[in-house]
Amino acid sequence: MSLLVVGSVALDSIKTPFGKREDVLGGSATYLALAASYFTPVNLVSVVGHDFPGSYLEFFRKRNINLEGLTISKNNRTFRWQGYYEDDLNEAHTIRTELNVFENFKPEIPKEYQSCDYLFLANVDPDIQSEVLHQVKGVKFVVCDTIGYWIDKKPESLKKVLAKVDAFMVNESELREFTHESNLLKGAKKVMELGPGIVVVKRGDSGATMFMTNSIFSLPAYPLEAVLDPTGAGDSFGGGFIGYICQEDSTEEKILRKAMVYGSAIASFSVGGFGTEGLKDLEFERIEKRHHEFEELTDF
Amino acid sequence: MSLLVVGSVALDSIKTPFGKREDVLGGSATYLALAASYFTPVNLVSVVGHDFPGSYLEFFRKRNINLEGLTISKNNRTFRWQGYYEDDLNEAHTIRTELNVFENFKPEIPKEYQSCDYLFLANVDPDIQSEVLHQVKGVKFVVCDTIGYWIDKKPESLKKVLAKVDAFMVNESELREFTHESNLLKGAKKVMELGPGIVVVKRGDSGATMFMTNSIFSLPAYPLEAVLDPTGAGDSFGGGFIGYICQEDSTEEKILRKAMVYGSAIASFSVGGFGTEGLKDLEFERIEKRHHEFEELTDF
Repeated sequence: MSLLVVGSVALDSIKTPFGKREDVLGGSATYLALAASYFTPVNLVSVVGHDFPGSYLEFFRKRNINLEGLTISKNNRTFRWQGYYEDDLNEAHTIRTELNVFENFKPEIPKEYQSCDYLFLANVDPDIQSEVLHQVKGVKFVVCDTIGYWIDKKPESLKKVLAKVDAFMVNESELREFTHESNLLKGAKKVMELGPGIVVVKRGDSGATMFMTNSIFSLPAYPLEAVLDPTGAGDSFGGGFIGYICQEDSTEEKILRKAMVYGSAIASFSVGGFGTEGLKDLEFERIEKRHHEFEELTDF
Repeated sequence: MSLLVVGSVALDSIKTPFGKREDVLGGSATYLALAASYFTPVNLVSVVGHDFPGSYLEFFRKRNINLEGLTISKNNRTFRWQGYYEDDLNEAHTIRTELNVFENFKPEIPKEYQSCDYLFLANVDPDIQSEVLHQVKGVKFVVCDTIGYWIDKKPESLKKVLAKVDAFMVNESELREFTHESNLLKGAKKVMELGPGIVVVKRGDSGATMFMTNSIFSLPAYPLEAVLDPTGAGDSFGGGFIGYICQEDSTEEKILRKAMVYGSAIASFSVGGFGTEGLKDLEFERIEKRHHEFEELTDF
């Protein structure tokens, strides 16, 4: 089965109460692809600038992430995000966003990626997401993510994307913002009216809830003492989710529920290190162990 | 098995985005006792004023709640709380608190209640909680709850109580306030150092987590579309929790986990009505059905 991930690859400068890092590997598609790569090979479509370190390209390749769809722009710099977290690690504060190569990015999906089985549209301009949907065909299952920035700037573009995807993945606060509805269940139903039959709400240290047409699945977060950097937690979650679905080649509810657990497991490792450190040398055994720990955590 | 509940009985005036009520039955021990009464007879110790409606006394009696320990003060008015909720139903805003009969309340535990098997010290002045602990003997399992007001005013008194109880039940934000620790797991560990082997953290619409010495249990909240009034949700949770434990006469971890589910089930009904309306004519079948719905909600 083949998985296509489209989204941003970035250089992040992050400060949390536990330290700081400059120009480390980041971006929605980065975390997505890294997390998914523990379950399945990943085809990545994104763009970086001339300043993007070769060591990061090497890192992707080692993790079985195909870079044929990664454009390296000679004339522009890599997308950059600078932000910080205070004691409440659930909330990221943005200091600066430089779109750079994403200002005029027109994705071109390589021919052999166009008939992918599974597609994750990671956070990026919804018009870019629409363009991707235009170029692919016969996809079995499409998941789309976004952030408050696009909900605010391009709600109509986002709605057009939602009409064409199977699942929408979104943060709790962003769902509230998008639907003007403080109740999550009501908010999820409003989104479903726009198209997707599945709405996955990411709730930080409160876990995640998946709303389906006739059923709801809810999972608490894994209780961690050492959260160093929450950057990319949601995208890591998305990567584990779609990675497991692709590995099993099924979107049965049973598989979707387990995918939520694998997503949460991967996210719990992601936040244990700065940037992508937590996703670097993960052994699959540890992911399986965490899956088992989720069973113990929730068993009654 | 016998259950003793000590705490406040109040008249609440509540406003939520969905309506308002004046001088309705409220108080920590009220919700606790009502919720627990679906599992076991309850002995209640509290105090009300001369203005307390007889119809509320009748309501307690009908629900199998023994009122021998309920003092009716001839010289003072019932404890009153007035508050409101905005769109974020997780946060109660207090307008006014009148301690009235609680200003000089010295609990006297009736002799036949003193050798109770299970004791729930619902939210009330920690010095009153200490006095209760002084009067009981041979209790198998004591749970204590509190609110931010006492954490702020009488932290040392609260610590003395915690040294003598088996379980501490507390809201997420209040645990943070009490322990000066934003991480819940670290906060729970700090509380355990003060005495209790069990810390139950109530997280509103994010569910509840129980920290034990060698294990953690976490349960999402039941997703509800119609939350009318969250007042008493935490105390209803506590009542279902201790009620089930008393019914089973066991504090084995397996029972404690199920007690969390029954607590959450009762709380989900409590918030569906104003004041105690949601706990009025509940049939046990509906509670069992909700327990089963929690299985479906969390199964993977």
